[in-house]
Amino acid sequence: MENGFVGELIGTAILVLMGNGVVSNVLLSKSKGQNSGWIVIATGWAFAVLAGVVTAVALGSQGHLNPAVTLAFYALGHFPGNEVLPYLAGQLLGAFLGAVLVWLTYLSHWKNTEDAGIKLACFSTGPAIRAPFANMLTELIGTFVLVFLVVAIFNKAVGTTGVLGPLIVALIVYGIGLSLGGPTGFAINPARDFGARIAHSILPIAGKGPSDWSYAWVPIVGPILGGIGAIAAARLAGMI
Amino acid sequence: MENGFVGELIGTAILVLMGNGVVSNVLLSKSKGQNSGWIVIATGWAFAVLAGVVTAVALGSQGHLNPAVTLAFYALGHFPGNEVLPYLAGQLLGAFLGAVLVWLTYLSHWKNTEDAGIKLACFSTGPAIRAPFANMLTELIGTFVLVFLVVAIFNKAVGTTGVLGPLIVALIVYGIGLSLGGPTGFAINPARDFGARIAHSILPIAGKGPSDWSYAWVPIVGPILGGIGAIAAARLAGMI
Amino acid sequence: MENGFVGELIGTAILVLMGNGVVSNVLLSKSKGQNSGWIVIATGWAFAVLAGVVTAVALGSQGHLNPAVTLAFYALGHFPGNEVLPYLAGQLLGAFLGAVLVWLTYLSHWKNTEDAGIKLACFSTGPAIRAPFANMLTELIGTFVLVFLVVAIFNKAVGTTGVLGPLIVALIVYGIGLSLGGPTGFAINPARDFGARIAHSILPIAGKGPSDWSYAWVPIVGPILGGIGAIAAARLAGMI
Amino acid sequence: MENGFVGELIGTAILVLMGNGVVSNVLLSKSKGQNSGWIVIATGWAFAVLAGVVTAVALGSQGHLNPAVTLAFYALGHFPGNEVLPYLAGQLLGAFLGAVLVWLTYLSHWKNTEDAGIKLACFSTGPAIRAPFANMLTELIGTFVLVFLVVAIFNKAVGTTGVLGPLIVALIVYGIGLSLGGPTGFAINPARDFGARIAHSILPIAGKGPSDWSYAWVPIVGPILGGIGAIAAARLAGMI
Repeated sequence: MENGFVGELIGTAILVLMGNGVVSNVLLSKSKGQNSGWIVIATGWAFAVLAGVVTAVALGSQGHLNPAVTLAFYALGHFPGNEVLPYLAGQLLGAFLGAVLVWLTYLSHWKNTEDAGIKLACFSTGPAIRAPFANMLTELIGTFVLVFLVVAIFNKAVGTTGVLGPLIVALIVYGIGLSLGGPTGFAINPARDFGARIAHSILPIAGKGPSDWSYAWVPIVGPILGGIGAIAAARLAGMI
Repeated sequence: MENGFVGELIGTAILVLMGNGVVSNVLLSKSKGQNSGWIVIATGWAFAVLAGVVTAVALGSQGHLNPAVTLAFYALGHFPGNEVLPYLAGQLLGAFLGAVLVWLTYLSHWKNTEDAGIKLACFSTGPAIRAPFANMLTELIGTFVLVFLVVAIFNKAVGTTGVLGPLIVALIVYGIGLSLGGPTGFAINPARDFGARIAHSILPIAGKGPSDWSYAWVPIVGPILGGIGAIAAARLAGMI
Repeated sequence: MENGFVGELIGTAILVLMGNGVVSNVLLSKSKGQNSGWIVIATGWAFAVLAGVVTAVALGSQGHLNPAVTLAFYALGHFPGNEVLPYLAGQLLGAFLGAVLVWLTYLSHWKNTEDAGIKLACFSTGPAIRAPFANMLTELIGTFVLVFLVVAIFNKAVGTTGVLGPLIVALIVYGIGLSLGGPTGFAINPARDFGARIAHSILPIAGKGPSDWSYAWVPIVGPILGGIGAIAAARLAGMI
Repeated sequence: MENGFVGELIGTAILVLMGNGVVSNVLLSKSKGQNSGWIVIATGWAFAVLAGVVTAVALGSQGHLNPAVTLAFYALGHFPGNEVLPYLAGQLLGAFLGAVLVWLTYLSHWKNTEDAGIKLACFSTGPAIRAPFANMLTELIGTFVLVFLVVAIFNKAVGTTGVLGPLIVALIVYGIGLSLGGPTGFAINPARDFGARIAHSILPIAGKGPSDWSYAWVPIVGPILGGIGAIAAARLAGMI
């Protein structure tokens, strides 16, 4: 249990440090990667997942790093109830910690960037076109693919072994970011979004604006529904 | 047989959701990945293949996801006749279902995009320069490489095991998209194109135009000829 | 021996089809990947190598696809003399065949492209700044890295197995293209350049210009010297 | 011990040749990859790491290629004291040698490039916004992630075998470059920066400017502190 907490905590911190780090690199003024585009963002998130999952597994957790994964496995009886809280706590605290580290990594760039919306984007996701139901649907579909694939990857017939597990999960997130990330920026993870949004609201970020709390439920509800739907579908299809 | 149908159905749905998803991300107005270029499209399709094949294999099919593959193996006696129909049906229905999911994922973006041709491109392929015979030849060559490589990858001498199989297939499609996709957008798969074209013609996509049925035969005939040619060549070369 | 010829022939044809295919996609007018940049070119060549080597190995050759590799191994006694000719012949013919297939794949695009220099670049390499000695040095260094790494990858201490062999070789070529390809376009392979240059001079390419034969020796001599140097260095370092 | 020296020497030379090579490709005038952006730089460095580590391991060292790694393992008792000096010497000399090879590879491009700052960037890193403490913090965090992940990757629970070790390390550096490289250009390695800076100051580079020695301590101190911190954290977390 403790291992679960520590693994999820540090794993999610590294996930969010690197994931929100790449957004900062692309968006913040004077950053060397400024305006380097969607390929950089999606590639950066992919290897953020690789780093986070490898870290978590090495520390003794299953490497969920995502409440939508933990809750979906638990809801359908594939994860022990007494581990849920340590996992969720580790994920949320880890996302907060990772966001603090992003702030420190790009310390000189916040005051050099004018647009407050860009600064928020370095912490939490926001919609390309604000339409809460459609945005939630996008997050639901993206997380469905993520969780369904996590089950498929570790199915015996596929034969995924060792570090290829985290690698293939990372490449699936790569694909989700490239393909399904256009409308909402692919949170597909409530902790990644909520924990970093809390960090945005608390940290003394130079020239920051509001934390857009009215959108905060979308990347929580969509991913949780998508994750549960994926496990249900995997069971229906006899894959789990 | 049933497993074959389900695997091809859900695998192809995920393939087309992610594959056409990345086209939508790059082409649709206000999408976060708008104008992010060919590298995003080819990379997105690569990991769409990874996700689709892993899904299909986990569900019990061989992971063809492509009538050109199934028909070519069948035509030369390397695939059982009674599985052909369930495979083709799963592929076509899956491609349709995947296209519907693309429409839902990008729901707010259709009405924000003016060009009807761009909307069609998020479903089916079209030629850069309309020249049916040349276009068909391009699709034939691309699918030849795909099917020939599928045979080569699983040849004993190469030693491909477990999840590395779907991964290497995905990287080959990555290469085909980058290298041979310029003239026609690399359908290299009749179901992916035809199933999604049907979805385009049926779905209430805001501001859509015609479905360009006059081109529809090209990404059907080219891939089927290329696939059969590849299996024939593989036999001639003693590789199968 | 025959297997060596066939494997090198078809493997090199696929290498050059996909490698020169990606150059065509980026350079030719109206191609869907036009102006998509160096990342597309280097990535395309990487998976061209993967496809070519896997093909060659499946067909029974060692998957050199490159006279600089074959000659270097032979010169220092690590390749049987009676296989040299079939290997070189397969590589040269394969490169020619691959270039013909590029011409067919992009059939409608040649007449739509004005610049004859761009059309040559879809077949053979040319220098960014014409300086034969410096250009040869660049090709020598690039091929040194390639051949040295081929030896290193298959060293027992590294533990490369199965299809990971071709994959890691492909990723090394990816790196060479990105890093060392700037001055000359990384031929690093005499057959790839010379075979395709012959195709350029023979094929009825719409609106083509001269085949720049005065440069042709550079991507032959540089790679051969680099390859031999690499094997010599590998022996000196006790790696072979 | 000797093997350690030779492996680190040649491995680091290849690391810096390819790593600084890709910077040169993107920055130098008339280079074919000019202005191809951050994705090219980060991808090039990733496969530079792959090539360097594979080389070093094949030659008999552990493939650190980085004093921050060697010193951190040594400081906490995980590396033998009598190997420290040969490792550091190999790394520093290797970085110098690699930088000389970059100069030769791009020989014609130095005189064609006007900006002396760009030429320095092809050797050593510099900050996007000069703020020594913040810059050092960025380097510290980046190297922390690198060294922490090196420990995690080879943890038994992760199951990394053979060439997948160097590959996953390369992909982690890929992620660090994309995500954390914005403020300082991710030296995360004192030898890579210092050895190449010495080369810049000594070599007769056409039209070069000063070597910015006032910044030189940042990519030395930051990485060493980050590396030691990572090993300490890994021990605290029971991972080593």
